[in-house]
Amino acid sequence: IEKELQAAVSGGDGNAVTREAFRQAVVNTLERRLFYIPSFKIYRGVAGLYDYGPPGCAVKANVLSFWRQHFVLEENMLEVDCPCVTPEVVLKASGHVDKFTDLMVKDLKTGTCYRADHLLKDFCNEKLQKDLTISTEKAAEFKLVLATLDDLSSEELGAKIKEYGIVAPDTKNPLSDPYPFNLMFQTSIGPSGTIAGFMRPETAQGIFVNFKDLYYYNGNRLPFAAAQIGQAFRNEISPRQGLLRVREFTLAEIEHFVDPEDKSHPKFSEVSHLEFLMFPREQQMSGQSATKTCLGEAVAMGTVNNETLGYFIGRVYLFLTRLGIDKDRLRFRQHLANEMAHYAADCWDAEIECSYGWIECVGIADRSAYDLRAHTEKSGVALVAAEKFAQPREVEKLVITPIKKEIGLAFKGSQKMVIEALEAMTEEEAMKMKSSLESKGEDEFLVCTLGKTVTIKDGMVKISKEKKKEHQRVFTPSVIEPSFGIGRIIYCLYEHSFYKRPSKDGDEQLNVFSFPPLVAPIKCTVFPLIQKPEYEAVAQRISKLLTAAGVSHIIDMSGNTIGKRYARTDELGVPFAITADSETDVTIRERDSKDQVRITISQVASIVKDLTEGHKTWADVWSAYPHHTSANGEDNDL
Amino acid sequence: IEKELQAAVSGGDGNAVTREAFRQAVVNTLERRLFYIPSFKIYRGVAGLYDYGPPGCAVKANVLSFWRQHFVLEENMLEVDCPCVTPEVVLKASGHVDKFTDLMVKDLKTGTCYRADHLLKDFCNEKLQKDLTISTEKAAEFKLVLATLDDLSSEELGAKIKEYGIVAPDTKNPLSDPYPFNLMFQTSIGPSGTIAGFMRPETAQGIFVNFKDLYYYNGNRLPFAAAQIGQAFRNEISPRQGLLRVREFTLAEIEHFVDPEDKSHPKFSEVSHLEFLMFPREQQMSGQSATKTCLGEAVAMGTVNNETLGYFIGRVYLFLTRLGIDKDRLRFRQHLANEMAHYAADCWDAEIECSYGWIECVGIADRSAYDLRAHTEKSGVALVAAEKFAQPREVEKLVITPIKKEIGLAFKGSQKMVIEALEAMTEEEAMKMKSSLESKGEDEFLVCTLGKTVTIKDGMVKISKEKKKEHQRVFTPSVIEPSFGIGRIIYCLYEHSFYKRPSKDGDEQLNVFSFPPLVAPIKCTVFPLIQKPEYEAVAQRISKLLTAAGVSHIIDMSGNTIGKRYARTDELGVPFAITADSETDVTIRERDSKDQVRITISQVASIVKDLTEGHKTWADVWSAYPHHTSANGEDNDL
Repeated sequence: IEKELQAAVSGGDGNAVTREAFRQAVVNTLERRLFYIPSFKIYRGVAGLYDYGPPGCAVKANVLSFWRQHFVLEENMLEVDCPCVTPEVVLKASGHVDKFTDLMVKDLKTGTCYRADHLLKDFCNEKLQKDLTISTEKAAEFKLVLATLDDLSSEELGAKIKEYGIVAPDTKNPLSDPYPFNLMFQTSIGPSGTIAGFMRPETAQGIFVNFKDLYYYNGNRLPFAAAQIGQAFRNEISPRQGLLRVREFTLAEIEHFVDPEDKSHPKFSEVSHLEFLMFPREQQMSGQSATKTCLGEAVAMGTVNNETLGYFIGRVYLFLTRLGIDKDRLRFRQHLANEMAHYAADCWDAEIECSYGWIECVGIADRSAYDLRAHTEKSGVALVAAEKFAQPREVEKLVITPIKKEIGLAFKGSQKMVIEALEAMTEEEAMKMKSSLESKGEDEFLVCTLGKTVTIKDGMVKISKEKKKEHQRVFTPSVIEPSFGIGRIIYCLYEHSFYKRPSKDGDEQLNVFSFPPLVAPIKCTVFPLIQKPEYEAVAQRISKLLTAAGVSHIIDMSGNTIGKRYARTDELGVPFAITADSETDVTIRERDSKDQVRITISQVASIVKDLTEGHKTWADVWSAYPHHTSANGEDNDL
Repeated sequence: IEKELQAAVSGGDGNAVTREAFRQAVVNTLERRLFYIPSFKIYRGVAGLYDYGPPGCAVKANVLSFWRQHFVLEENMLEVDCPCVTPEVVLKASGHVDKFTDLMVKDLKTGTCYRADHLLKDFCNEKLQKDLTISTEKAAEFKLVLATLDDLSSEELGAKIKEYGIVAPDTKNPLSDPYPFNLMFQTSIGPSGTIAGFMRPETAQGIFVNFKDLYYYNGNRLPFAAAQIGQAFRNEISPRQGLLRVREFTLAEIEHFVDPEDKSHPKFSEVSHLEFLMFPREQQMSGQSATKTCLGEAVAMGTVNNETLGYFIGRVYLFLTRLGIDKDRLRFRQHLANEMAHYAADCWDAEIECSYGWIECVGIADRSAYDLRAHTEKSGVALVAAEKFAQPREVEKLVITPIKKEIGLAFKGSQKMVIEALEAMTEEEAMKMKSSLESKGEDEFLVCTLGKTVTIKDGMVKISKEKKKEHQRVFTPSVIEPSFGIGRIIYCLYEHSFYKRPSKDGDEQLNVFSFPPLVAPIKCTVFPLIQKPEYEAVAQRISKLLTAAGVSHIIDMSGNTIGKRYARTDELGVPFAITADSETDVTIRERDSKDQVRITISQVASIVKDLTEGHKTWADVWSAYPHHTSANGEDNDL
């Protein structure tokens, strides 16, 4: 069954039923062992909200702790911790108040809400899969709709819904036209109700608004990165896909600030040799699939925009695979032109394949100077960096000086708009006007804010190029943002780690999570072989030694058979089990191979510590200590 | 100055000016070094919201990590992680929707809101401190108001405000009557706006609603504890006291579930010998102050209600003092009868003295069965535990069987209330009625829900005692809750760790945070004595060794004098500084003593690791290695 399930997952979309069965097996195990719990379950829950139960909470803590070590400590990032409650002004500047929306339709009779694109998607999929009567042309049309779903405007979506006669799925009632619904949870700050606020949809804005202080903290030097781990909130219209689309989640975000003129990275050579699945824009457009690519070449060929972006792609690859994500089901997909924000220089998603398909788990974007500029404009505080020159440099600067008196006389009430338009001219426009004024004494000039062309006469504006000495170059840094959806990564890790194997007598399938020690919720189980005071005392002694060594473990004194106890601990993904069956030495069993070695009690804690901290592999231990065969067939003796 | 400041803090309320100056010195240092930052500062901020900057974030992570180790791992607690967004039904059951309020008054012209008790408190304090004309009686009255402030009803508060002619402090406009303002941030869940939700005001409810699953996870055994670390939110009316009263904060909460008939604790003997400042109810009422008390005696004498509560008080004492809280400015204060919720069996606050006075930082309450009962009632899911008997026990049970037909005939429309009242009788009431019915054939019976007495005749109810075999006892567990305000603990720690000392030439006061290595944001600084390639290479080599050993550190290659660099690192509370001044060995300097020893480069990482992990003290190192005197006066050489 194991092979069948794995095949189902990796085998593309052919086998939806088996994929569904695999997912059910994983999810049932996760819920039964309290890796997660639907929140507020005794009150019948709330869609899109989940608790992490004890083992889930431990896995999450391990993932976050490794994230801190792999990114924050390794790169000396500045970690900050900002509130979730955010005033409207900040999210107005970032664009979230106006643009962080999904299109929604309402059941016109009951008021129930649906995501417009979901309904259209479901309709097309249903037709393609179940309706055998549709023509080839119609099928092609549905496929086109599915492919372009994300590009459809509100009007286009509405037109398609009308054209196909799509109705509310629960009631068959007619639907409203699509309209935008803002996905932020709104609240108000303070008692008077006058300060509108939202629960942050991402942690990044807290870093951007602190840029000035952080830059100063870093000794006014670039590049540097700030990082934040915290809760974010999205009031999804109708959450689907279980743990993948939730209304509250933990984000871990990095904002790496860099001089836009120099996006090289000193440590790029440490990752440039890595090879993994990359899926650039061109390959997606031409219908090819992701191919194994050398990161260094992708950057050299310009497929990846710059070294810093490439460096983070490489580091993300290492992070995910060390957690236990299967490298053959991990790809880096470049955003298509229509997916990418207009200001972004380049953007790659780390996508992980699971039973729901390829899921975006990490976004790695070069957001250029967009965010810092937006907050500079709205707050009036300049979020800029400066490069001090060793020697002052002489630069030529365009100077446009409107002669206010002349313009006032000529344009009266419109003078302000004319002056502003003149000052906003590009160098090219200004030099054209200058030569026109010099040759013809006047120039026709389009003032957008007036919606018409006016005649500028000689003497109304002075245009010149002046030489100035500059001591520094002031600029808005670019930001490269790797943003991690921690819950999604963990869910995919659960699927990649899960397998079933038959019990010894073959009449039962046992669940196993093959977590690496790094993420395993508990590193080790300790039990006496049978309920016997001597063995129990040994188990207690070992437990104390493990506590002193700082190895998280549980002790199982229950009277269950050893096989049952191994099965219970395998299902939690505990990598090692110590069985006390003598007063001098014990066995250590490795979860996936079920191999056992014999070790003296005094050595056991340090060996398990080395194994779980990665200083030793199981192969090292296997080759160094006597092997143990369970003569009495204790393993899987259910 | 150091002595003066410390004296001001510990010296009671005499020296408000010096206390204010001390606080300013701490807060200025904290803000300048980005321990914290007023959130959204470039938009002029929002009262009661703060960011943790890089060193603050590191201190917080260290405090939380120690909390996990000291409580969760040590006691095998079940850690969970629940969402902040919480549906109304949960907080209705817990009482927060109806009762989590503060009394507020409004400026009748501008609409500005104030906390009613704050205005009254300020008025009385101002009168007592600045008005020399008030009579002895008036002064006594103001003192009484201050002492009973928390007990005043809305009406009483309103009456006092009227009587004293208190007006809006900013405008002198008249004020509204006080009215309750709910402190929860409200939002709505889902697109239709029909599910009301709140940002949780505490993390505890997420644990209570999961009791059933957690009890099962623990093998259906009591006692056990669940724990949660997470954000909580309170929409304070007018936040004051800087970092102490904020609108969003991190809570770390433990819910220890225990059989109400057995609140002993197996590990109590490990803390019973501890002695610290305790401030029981009686001492507070009789105007005494807190006295040093032995915890074991306090429990034995019944001052502390039970062993489990006592155990946690002891563990909290150890936790706080190990973090670096001064034990002489830490006391455990018992709640007065009027402070405590009606259902609570006992409640003690760990209060820490800082420049704002004695601040509640941890609450340790025996909340009895209140929360589990409330959720059982509202959700219909029984949140109970069972004690299985080894042998079935014969118990005598009261059985009350109203004869519905007879009652219906006699009471018609009121029959339902009569039946419910009969069924709700206590054993004593029922046996009285039984004997009355047997002797007189009838009984007078008060039905509260009808507001009158009715006559119950023989034949309307059957009352008997029956013997039953029971296999288990089913009960609602009691919960003992230690709840930690992490931000408050950290702020008090900052104040307790801060001191000033003169620079070597005495013309400057230098700031120092004397954090223990456990909480220090950075464990170690590395710098070359002077900017010289050989020394810089050594510094880089040591940095690599420290990284490999997992010791967080910074490297300072700036050209500042060594004294200036020491001062900068002292101000961040970095406990150890390594100066590279040769190619074979280096000096390690301890922050508070400024003592230095010489160590070979190969030993340095392991010694610093031992020092920061608590395996070695500075005294150990000082006695084992050659001392170094800075011949060239490098320390404090500004």
